[in-house]
Order: sequence, then structure tokens, then C-alpha cells
Amino acid sequence: MKKTQSDQVTALNLGKQAKLTPQLQAYFDKCREKLGFVPNVLRAYAFDAAKLQAFIDMVDDLMLADSGLSKLEREMIAVAVSSVNHCHYCLTAHGAAVRQRAKDPEMGELIAQNYRAAPLSGKQKAMLDFAVKLTQKPAEIEESDRQALRDAGWKDRDIWDIAAVAGFYNMSNRIAAATDMKPNREYHYMVRSPTAESA
Amino acid sequence: MKKTQSDQVTALNLGKQAKLTPQLQAYFDKCREKLGFVPNVLRAYAFDAAKLQAFIDMVDDLMLADSGLSKLEREMIAVAVSSVNHCHYCLTAHGAAVRQRAKDPEMGELIAQNYRAAPLSGKQKAMLDFAVKLTQKPAEIEESDRQALRDAGWKDRDIWDIAAVAGFYNMSNRIAAATDMKPNREYHYMVRSPTAESA
Amino acid sequence: MKKTQSDQVTALNLGKQAKLTPQLQAYFDKCREKLGFVPNVLRAYAFDAAKLQAFIDMVDDLMLADSGLSKLEREMIAVAVSSVNHCHYCLTAHGAAVRQRAKDPEMGELIAQNYRAAPLSGKQKAMLDFAVKLTQKPAEIEESDRQALRDAGWKDRDIWDIAAVAGFYNMSNRIAAATDMKPNREYHYMVRSPTAESA
Amino acid sequence: MKKTQSDQVTALNLGKQAKLTPQLQAYFDKCREKLGFVPNVLRAYAFDAAKLQAFIDMVDDLMLADSGLSKLEREMIAVAVSSVNHCHYCLTAHGAAVRQRAKDPEMGELIAQNYRAAPLSGKQKAMLDFAVKLTQKPAEIEESDRQALRDAGWKDRDIWDIAAVAGFYNMSNRIAAATDMKPNREYHYMVRSPTAESA
Amino acid sequence: MKKTQSDQVTALNLGKQAKLTPQLQAYFDKCREKLGFVPNVLRAYAFDAAKLQAFIDMVDDLMLADSGLSKLEREMIAVAVSSVNHCHYCLTAHGAAVRQRAKDPEMGELIAQNYRAAPLSGKQKAMLDFAVKLTQKPAEIEESDRQALRDAGWKDRDIWDIAAVAGFYNMSNRIAAATDMKPNREYHYMVRSPTAESA
Amino acid sequence: MKKTQSDQVTALNLGKQAKLTPQLQAYFDKCREKLGFVPNVLRAYAFDAAKLQAFIDMVDDLMLADSGLSKLEREMIAVAVSSVNHCHYCLTAHGAAVRQRAKDPEMGELIAQNYRAAPLSGKQKAMLDFAVKLTQKPAEIEESDRQALRDAGWKDRDIWDIAAVAGFYNMSNRIAAATDMKPNREYHYMVRSPTAESA
Repeated sequence: MKKTQSDQVTALNLGKQAKLTPQLQAYFDKCREKLGFVPNVLRAYAFDAAKLQAFIDMVDDLMLADSGLSKLEREMIAVAVSSVNHCHYCLTAHGAAVRQRAKDPEMGELIAQNYRAAPLSGKQKAMLDFAVKLTQKPAEIEESDRQALRDAGWKDRDIWDIAAVAGFYNMSNRIAAATDMKPNREYHYMVRSPTAESA
Repeated sequence: MKKTQSDQVTALNLGKQAKLTPQLQAYFDKCREKLGFVPNVLRAYAFDAAKLQAFIDMVDDLMLADSGLSKLEREMIAVAVSSVNHCHYCLTAHGAAVRQRAKDPEMGELIAQNYRAAPLSGKQKAMLDFAVKLTQKPAEIEESDRQALRDAGWKDRDIWDIAAVAGFYNMSNRIAAATDMKPNREYHYMVRSPTAESA
Repeated sequence: MKKTQSDQVTALNLGKQAKLTPQLQAYFDKCREKLGFVPNVLRAYAFDAAKLQAFIDMVDDLMLADSGLSKLEREMIAVAVSSVNHCHYCLTAHGAAVRQRAKDPEMGELIAQNYRAAPLSGKQKAMLDFAVKLTQKPAEIEESDRQALRDAGWKDRDIWDIAAVAGFYNMSNRIAAATDMKPNREYHYMVRSPTAESA
Repeated sequence: MKKTQSDQVTALNLGKQAKLTPQLQAYFDKCREKLGFVPNVLRAYAFDAAKLQAFIDMVDDLMLADSGLSKLEREMIAVAVSSVNHCHYCLTAHGAAVRQRAKDPEMGELIAQNYRAAPLSGKQKAMLDFAVKLTQKPAEIEESDRQALRDAGWKDRDIWDIAAVAGFYNMSNRIAAATDMKPNREYHYMVRSPTAESA
Repeated sequence: MKKTQSDQVTALNLGKQAKLTPQLQAYFDKCREKLGFVPNVLRAYAFDAAKLQAFIDMVDDLMLADSGLSKLEREMIAVAVSSVNHCHYCLTAHGAAVRQRAKDPEMGELIAQNYRAAPLSGKQKAMLDFAVKLTQKPAEIEESDRQALRDAGWKDRDIWDIAAVAGFYNMSNRIAAATDMKPNREYHYMVRSPTAESA
Repeated sequence: MKKTQSDQVTALNLGKQAKLTPQLQAYFDKCREKLGFVPNVLRAYAFDAAKLQAFIDMVDDLMLADSGLSKLEREMIAVAVSSVNHCHYCLTAHGAAVRQRAKDPEMGELIAQNYRAAPLSGKQKAMLDFAVKLTQKPAEIEESDRQALRDAGWKDRDIWDIAAVAGFYNMSNRIAAATDMKPNREYHYMVRSPTAESA
């Protein structure tokens, strides 16, 4: 599978990168500094600075702002949803994130394959059950589904966040599928050695 | 079906409305001026100003910014996706938008029921075929699906917008389903009389 | 969406209307008197008087004869089934019927979109849960499904009627889909103003 | 599997048989004379003479009236639809009918199991492809599906009949499933020996 | 449906039969002696003696070795799985086996049509519920599904056998579907008369 | 995710390991020598020597015997099928095998996530399209599906092997799901560094 890192990260010809605002330029610089690269999803959106900024604002709020869900739990939702939707981009990028945040390469694999096989707490299992039902059968969500989350220990405010993260990756998965978006190859190789947690 | 317009627009207890920034306050004021009310989805998000702003930024860019898709076409995608997902909120709010932008109450009904029965151009039919396949079977999108859009007259830049709008309503539908979000009742009664277009 | 009311109400060329019996002629006259038009489904069947009479006999018995279900409840089943099957004809015609019989335009919309979002009694919710499962997964109905109806207050005789009405619209939906049957445009505009019930 | 032929042919307690009209009484007598028994579906409906008459009128028109489809072809549709819906009653009763009308026990089995494995003409294969798609995905029927029938040699009038028969068994299958209707045991043993046709 | 028993039992041209080992030759001879014919699945595999031997070793262990499941129960699983997968070959061959082992032609039909309509013990019903869920939604099996089997009276060792038999026919069904494998016609006519058990 | 390598590799209590035949003992020894461990699927089957031997005979013939499919291609089928079925065990064990045989860690990930995103030859794409349709919709395989394989360059004998491997993993996936089979942890860490092929 020889390949070169080209400028084209999707199957669409979207024209060249827009002139980035200083705020976006600084964001890209920080990505390069912290990750070593700019995630391809941002490069894909970069043909239009307004769309790129709106995407960053939403994803950073969802995944990094204060929440009753840990950052790992939010990444677990991203990966469980992407597993249902078989999204190559998100499974690669967020699979790496679960491996990293869990400090456990096996957990990342498990959620990407089938969260039902993962050793989760009852509270986390309920969270992913809800996220996956919401992904597969949104029309069939009823009050009893919300109540199951409350019974497992989640607050109403957390239920919003579970829904918002699950909803977001149902969007991202589809944009990636529609455009054949390719993840940065570096993700495949991150956090692949046994760690203290997985030992 | 007696009901009163309560402050609670979802089944979740999310606490009281956050203090809105002047920018958001002005946005709400403009809604009241133009629509006569603040759409409930915005009231639902208003427990957190950052989330509300990010939502507004994304939806306004998608639905109102320059695009190869008309505003009506983008509303058609919203409704066709919401029909697959049986989303009460979005079918009500965006169904009204299709009726209004098409100046044709019947067209709004048709897209909400089954777009395949609507008298669409081949280009619009291809657009909705793609949006609906992306909604139902995102894992099965292939290059031939993108090519069908190009063959129907859409440019690559338009394909991005079709995907982004379809993806966005797959998110919104799920947030609405997860929270049992209720639309403003006014939507039901908008643009319900025969118009010049439907005559 | 300019259109003219043509004689062709389906995509099939079925030849001209059969000579109607006096009984059928009287029936059509009564439709014109009460509704202002002959429902297109009857016009579609009118190429054959025997088929038309059999259809009328069955639908009138199901929807109008004595039953433990109210006429509104039977229309609710028609619409909930048609929502699953995305049937343009039946959602339009029977959606109007729910609006009319409920004296509530919003209830008609709700059932057509997703009955799970409607403010139903537990007994009516159980009725539609059964009708929808019977529509989607007939092979999976078991005694526990019948018992759930009994527990909600339905008698065995009512269960027959729920099944018969749900079954009938699974037939009608498919005949309409197979033939691209178009509803009379008048239905779209019936009972669209807020009523005492919906106020 | 010891069992006795009881008066109860469904899981519902529908009360005793209604007083039959002379016309219905004569119909039952003819069944006993020709078949040796009254089909249980008729016994199930017999709690209400009007419903029974409407059912008989419709099914006899569909299955026995003049049509571009042979009676065997109409039975094939009944069985192919019932196979998708896994309807015990209809597979038993109409499976026997296909064995009998085809004079070929194997053909009856094949259609009940999977019509795609049966040695059908292209015209009959197209007929069952349409009936099965209409059963599984009614919302997705488009003009191209109708055209495929025309291309295979069916006239528009025949397409109506294909749709009407497929629709009818989607109704009957659901009434049988909803009520756990049991077929007369005699059907299992009819036309089970190799025939000239199957030799 | 005139047909001759040809040497080609699949739609694939797999070349001529391999030279059978004495062990396989004896096995074929025993089939002819006991059944009157060599089952076509064995003739299909006979292009390669190693594959044929591996298939025979596995199927005979699964269906005939000591087990907490009776031989009839294992055949019931074969047929219930094949019903979901609409496998012509296995429904014909193993449908005959259920008729024979149950000494009840009707039971064979019932399991092939829809096991939910069959008069099964609670233990057997639980067995088939598990086998069918494992067939349709393998990713969704959880500990509660295993526990339901234990609660119905099955031991862990039996659960393995239920899974192994259900798994095996999910394999066989697919090999038969992929190759259009035709069953020996004799199966259709075996155990078709009322028996003491069915009386 | 702390865990210890226990003797229990499934959720079932199957009793202790059977006394292995010298042939099986030698096989286990060879596994330890070549892989460093005995694959857990073999340890799971080891409660019964006959079942273990039959499993080994079949899998080794399928995956290692002469075939028109390369060993990598057979592993690709195993992984693509397991991706549809979300099988934790097989995705882990055979994902490692694809990484190893392709000498390309990314290819292993791609097939496990969604083969449609992988850079495959047309011949390999057709192979996986067939294997995945056979997994998802075995009842719908028709001659045109076989012909598509021939058109892509596969011989009839190869089609058998594609079907047999796809069928086999539909069996294995279900046995693993039914028993909650856990893969050896070592698989997660095999072939995870960039290789010459992936560079």
C-alpha cells in the first residue's frame, strides 16, 4: 500500500485552501506542535474559513469543554458511533484518541470493534447503549431510554452531552463517507505498545 | 391536545437559560421580529451560550451562506433526511421552511412524506437520493455515488454542501430524538393555504 | 409545482372508467356531496366495478363499522402504518382525517411524523406500538404482544380490529406505492387552522 | 405434536360464529364439498358476517377473476410475499395451492423457501422481484420498477394485479401473525406425491 | 418443472469428482444404502477430498455426537437458521430431517416457516430464540442472552452446542446460496404422510 | 483495563481441557513455537478433542491449502466478514494476520473498518463485495453476483473458495459472539510499526 501524503484528503476537488484567519493559523500551528500534523478533517474543511471555524468551535466545545462525561468517555462515544457507521476516518483518528486517553491500546480496539465486548462500568455501558441506539434507530428513542441513563447515574445535563456527541459523530461520519476522507497516517501508529494500564 | 407553551422544550431538565451574550441576545431579538418567536431548538441550547453560538454559526453557514445549492434545496435535504429519521422537530420546522421557500404547501408535504413521489428535476432527485443513502447506509457510499451527482450536474463543491447539510440533520435529528425536543406550535400553521405556485 | 387535476391518478394506464353500478354511482355522488370530490383511490379502482365495490365494502367496514376503537383511533393506525411505509397517498388523505376527527391539526402531523412524540394515552400508545411492530416485523409478533394490548385495556375483539386496520393499510400503502397513486390536492388544505382542541 | 381440531383457530377469543347469511352458508358448503373443509381464515372471520363477506369478495376477485396473471402466478405471489413475512398460515394454505396449480410439489416448496432458486421464466421472475420489493421496501418503488415489469412483458393492467395481490397478502400475513391464525392441517398433506410435472 | 438429475449440483463448474479415499467411498456407500442417495452437498464438495472429509467430520460431530441437545433439537436449529436465511438447500434437506426425527410432518413445516408458531417447550423456544438472534444480530449477543438459556434449563456445555450448530448452518446456508446448490429431489417427498405423532 | 490471562477464554464454563491426542498436542506445541501462544479459539475448543480436530482440519484447509486466492486475500475475507458482524475475536486475530501478510499495518485497519475505503484491485474489491453481500443478504445472491466475480477475473473454483471462507467466518463470528470469546492479547501488538510496504 504505497502512498504519498498528498494535499488531497478527500475524493472531492474543493479548490485550494482558503486564506486562514490569524486565529485559524494559530490553531493549525498548535496542531503541528502538539500532534505533529494538522488533522486531515481540518485540512478538508480549509477550503472555506467560515466552515472550518464553525467546525472547530463545535467539536472543541463538545470534546473538550466541561462536562459530566470525561474526555475519554466522549471519545468512546465517537468511536462506538463510528463503528456502527464503519467510518474509516473517525475510527482511525478517534480510535487513537481512545487508546491515548485510556492509556490502553486494547480498549481502543475493543470500542472500535464492538463495545459490548469491552470491560466497561455499568454507567459507561448504558452511555454507549444509548449512543448506539440513537445512531441506529433514532426514531425509536423513548422516555424509557432516557430513564435508563438516569438509572445508571447520568444527570439530565449529561444526557444532553451524550446525545450531542453521538449526534456530532453521526454528522462527521457521513461527511467523511460522502467525501472519502482519509485520515492522517500517523494515527495508525500512535499508542500501539502495551502500557501500564493494559499490562 | 391541550397544551401550554412552557419553558421546557425538551424532556431534559437542563437548568435555566444561560446569560446570553449581546450577540446572542440580538439574534434572539431578530428571530422574534422576523418569525414571531425564538425557535425551540435555540431555546433548548440556551442553557449554555457557547454551545448555542457554535450551533447557530454552523447552521447559518450551512443553510444561508453562498452555495451551489439554493436555500430551498438545502431545506429539501433537511426534510428528506428528517423523514427517514422520523424526526418530529425537524419535519415540523423545516417542513414549514420548504413550504415557504417553495411557495408551495404541497411540496413541503411531499418531501416530508416521501421525496420519491415529488415532482423534482433530475438534478434535485439525484441530490436527495444521495442524501438519503448517506443517511441510511453511510458505510456503503462509493465513488459511483459521487459520480452520479456529478453526472446530474453538481460540482464537487456542491457535493460537499449536500454532504454537510445531510450530515448536519443526521446530527440534529438525533439530538431532537434523544431529548424529545418539541417544535414551536406556530410552524404547523405556516404557509398552509394554496399559493400561486401550487395553484 | 404547477399541476392540473388530470384523469390519471396513477402512473399506470388502466383504461377508462368502468360503467358504474347504480350503487357505486350513488356512492361517488355522496363523496362529491360530503367531501367535494371523489377520493382518487376510488377513481383509481374505478376501471373495474367489482374491484371498486370490494375495496369500498372492506374499507367502510373497517373504518366506519361498530368497533371498540373510535374512528379517530382507526385513522391513527392508518397514519402510523403509512408513516412507517412512507406512503404519500395515505399520509395525505388519512393525515387529513386525523386532523379532522381529532379536531387538532397538530395531532395529525405528529402521527404522520412519529407517533412516539404524540401525547397519547397509554392505551392508544400500546395500540400504535402493536400496529407498527406488525407493520415492520410481522414474523416476530408473539403472545406477549397480544397480552400487552390486553394489559392496556383492549379486548380480544379490539385486537382483531387493530390488526385488521393495520393490515389493510399495509395493503393500501403498497398498492399506492406500486402505482404512484396521487391524492386529491384538497386534502393538503383541510383542517389546517388552529382549533379549539389544539388551542 | 398431538392436537385436536378445535373451534378456536386464532389466539383471540372473538366470541361465537355470527349467524351466516344464506349466501355465506352456501359458500361454506361449497368449501366443504370441494376442499373437504372450510378454510380456517374464513372460520376466523365468521364472528362477523359483514367482515367475512368483504374478505371473500376481495380475495375471490383477486385470485379468481379474469387477469393477465394466471391463477398459478397469483398464488406464486401470495407465497413469495408470505415467505418474506414468514407467515405460517399463508405459507401452508397457499403453498398447497401452488403445489396443486403447478401440479408440482417441488415448485410449491421452492417459492415458499426462496423464489430466487426456482426455475422461473424471466417474466415470472420479474413479477416476483417486484412483489418482494413491494413487500420489503414499499417506499422505494420507483418508475424504473414499473418499467422493469413492462420490459418483461407485463401490461399496466397486469401491474395493478401484481400490486393488488402482493398488497393483499401483506394484509393477510399481518392479520394471521397478529392473531396466531392456524391453518387447517389438511393443507400440509395435499399434493405431496411426485406428479407428472415434477417427474 | 421437468428436470433430470444431473451431475452438476451447483451453478459452479468445479471440475470432476476427486478420487475418493476408501474412507469417503465407504461413507458414500453408506449414504446410498441408508438414504438411497448421496446428499448433494457431499457431491458438491467431492471435487476435493480434503474439503469433503473436513466437512463430514464437522457436520457429523455437530449433528450426531453426544450432546445435551437431542438430534431433533439440532435439526430444529438447522431449519430455523435456514428459514431466516431462506436457504433452499438446507430447508429442503433438514426440513425432511425434522419431519423424520419428530415423526411429525407438520413440525417440519412449522420450523421452516416460522418457529414462533410451533408448539415448542419453553426450553426449545429459548434455544431457537438464541439461534435466530445469533443468526440475525450476532453483534448484539450479550450475557443476558446466555443467561436466558441457562434460565430455560440449558447448561453451558449445551450453549456451546447451540452456538456451534447455529454457526455451522450460517456457514452452510451461505455456501449453498453462493453456489446455488440444489438439494436431492427425494427430500421433498420424505415423511409427508400423517404419522402417529401428528395425528 | 487490567486483566490477567486466565484459563477461561469464553463466558461459558465448559469444563477442563480434554486429553489431547498426540497430533493435537504437537499442533499446540507448534503454535507456541511459531506464535508464542496457542490461539484462544483452539483453547476454547479444547474441551473436546474431536471438535477441536474438526475445527483445525477445516480452518487449515480453507486458509492454507492451495487456492486461486492468496493467503492474504483469504485473511481479507475473514476480516471483512468479521467487520460486518462486529466480531471482537476475529477482528483482533485476523486483523493481525492481514497486517502481517500484507506487511502493511494500515491495510489491516482499513479492512477491519470498511473495505470500501481500502486501495484494492478491482478483482479484490469484487471478492469482498461478494463476501459482504453473502454475509448480509445470503438469500439475495443470484447468478449475476457470481458472474460479477467471473468478470473480475475469478474462476468458478475460486468462487467456491471465496464462499467457503466467507461462510466459515460467518460461523466463527457467531460462535465467538455466542460465547464471548476473548482473543489472545498478543494479537493487538503484532505488526503495528510502519513497514516497507506501508512507507
